[in-house]
Amino acid sequence: MSESSKLWEKECILKEDERIDDLQRNGYRIIQKKKGFCFGMDAVLLSGFARVKVGERVIDLGTGTGIIPILLEAKTEGELFFGVEIQDEVAEMAARSVELNGLSEKVIILKGDIKELAEKGGENILLRACRKEDKAYLNAEEERLKLEAGSFDVITSNPPYMNTGHGLKNPGEMKSISRHEILCSLQDVCEAAGRLLKSGGRFYMVHRPHRLTEIISSLRSCRLEPKRMKFVHPFSDRDANMVLIEAVKGGRPQLKVEKPVIVYESEGRYTSEIYDVYGY
Amino acid sequence: MSESSKLWEKECILKEDERIDDLQRNGYRIIQKKKGFCFGMDAVLLSGFARVKVGERVIDLGTGTGIIPILLEAKTEGELFFGVEIQDEVAEMAARSVELNGLSEKVIILKGDIKELAEKGGENILLRACRKEDKAYLNAEEERLKLEAGSFDVITSNPPYMNTGHGLKNPGEMKSISRHEILCSLQDVCEAAGRLLKSGGRFYMVHRPHRLTEIISSLRSCRLEPKRMKFVHPFSDRDANMVLIEAVKGGRPQLKVEKPVIVYESEGRYTSEIYDVYGY
Repeated sequence: MSESSKLWEKECILKEDERIDDLQRNGYRIIQKKKGFCFGMDAVLLSGFARVKVGERVIDLGTGTGIIPILLEAKTEGELFFGVEIQDEVAEMAARSVELNGLSEKVIILKGDIKELAEKGGENILLRACRKEDKAYLNAEEERLKLEAGSFDVITSNPPYMNTGHGLKNPGEMKSISRHEILCSLQDVCEAAGRLLKSGGRFYMVHRPHRLTEIISSLRSCRLEPKRMKFVHPFSDRDANMVLIEAVKGGRPQLKVEKPVIVYESEGRYTSEIYDVYGY
Repeated sequence: MSESSKLWEKECILKEDERIDDLQRNGYRIIQKKKGFCFGMDAVLLSGFARVKVGERVIDLGTGTGIIPILLEAKTEGELFFGVEIQDEVAEMAARSVELNGLSEKVIILKGDIKELAEKGGENILLRACRKEDKAYLNAEEERLKLEAGSFDVITSNPPYMNTGHGLKNPGEMKSISRHEILCSLQDVCEAAGRLLKSGGRFYMVHRPHRLTEIISSLRSCRLEPKRMKFVHPFSDRDANMVLIEAVKGGRPQLKVEKPVIVYESEGRYTSEIYDVYGY
């Protein structure tokens, strides 16, 4: 990295309450809040579970830091990777991560509302960070983008896991919006996915197993048939704490439950699968 | 065993095309067809997964050889264990196994139709094998038993796994009826369970993971909410080939996916869990 770009980065792309983390993949990095919702293993596992073929168009619903589209750009040969995020500040941060990695031709961050996407395509604001004029973030055009029904091959989502009301402390907080169904519910996410996917398209979601029956009911109510499932257990003798799901729009019922992912071999020590497959 | 009872057993309780297998539990044994549908690991795993508390009334839907009520009688402190089977010959065989183990006070075999159970309690014929008059099987009373709605604490079922039409060769054959949904469907089993269970009662089922989305939809359509699930993988790196489910009548959605069961450590060698927990 040249001295000038380092300077630009230090002074302009990063705000005071943010930090840059290395993604251990293609040299990519990501901007995150120092104290806030950081991407977790959930997103990394989902990006390993999702299958994106050559030339496919992908959208991530509730993209947060933009971790999933950025990782999928690194791992797959998809054509375009969109990420929609409702929170202004978070979406702008994601757009800066895209620019930081020089991916603005491949990864597109939209500020938009999943609930509106489900209904009519939404009024999504296209966010572009630029390096011009020493500004940390510049929303160059305020371009609006309507997303057409059936216009995506693949959809991913790492949505808020918790029902509103379950242990909720600060409904207005950024972290709460990422974790609790304050601004969008499981049903909203499924409806948006059902609308945006083309027939035969694939929806990949990571969620909590304790909500599996609702997940399956919501998916099926949107003509998204679960076809592949993988449970993640923190240790081999523990209950699952995550589930990875692939659902196909208009698919016929026939599910495959793959071998589980075990995260830790012993306290603090990942299993070789986590090291190998997920690059931890 | 006395010489006379050995003789009785040899000459009377067993038909020519049958054999007696040891259950490795309480000295219990079971009569099975030499060439026919024999109970499998499915039934044994289900009887290990099901929880029956002191004094509870249990019914097994589609009991076949009677393996599940007999194993549950051995393993739990339930009060009464019913088994319903639609096939005459199979139900009579199960009744003889009950008598063989001296369990006729605790295990009751009914010849009945699950579809009728779901509708109106059915006209179930109570089958009792006796040792009187050197007869191999004696249906002493032709007693008919109506099963009241909400009259059971626990229901178990190892129903036919395959949709009718999937690889079906001989629809009339005993084996086919046990394996294919010829005489009752997944939905029929769930409806019967939903009707016979008291509120808060538990339904335990073993099935194939490839039908999980239908299973969950059928259960929920009968107010049976899945609460606990366990996947069975033949080897640690293979897809699951069985799923064990506990659903609670009128329960609220909150599922636990327990650590998976791995059956084989290597070809032909069970894991210690299978040896220890399931007594193989």
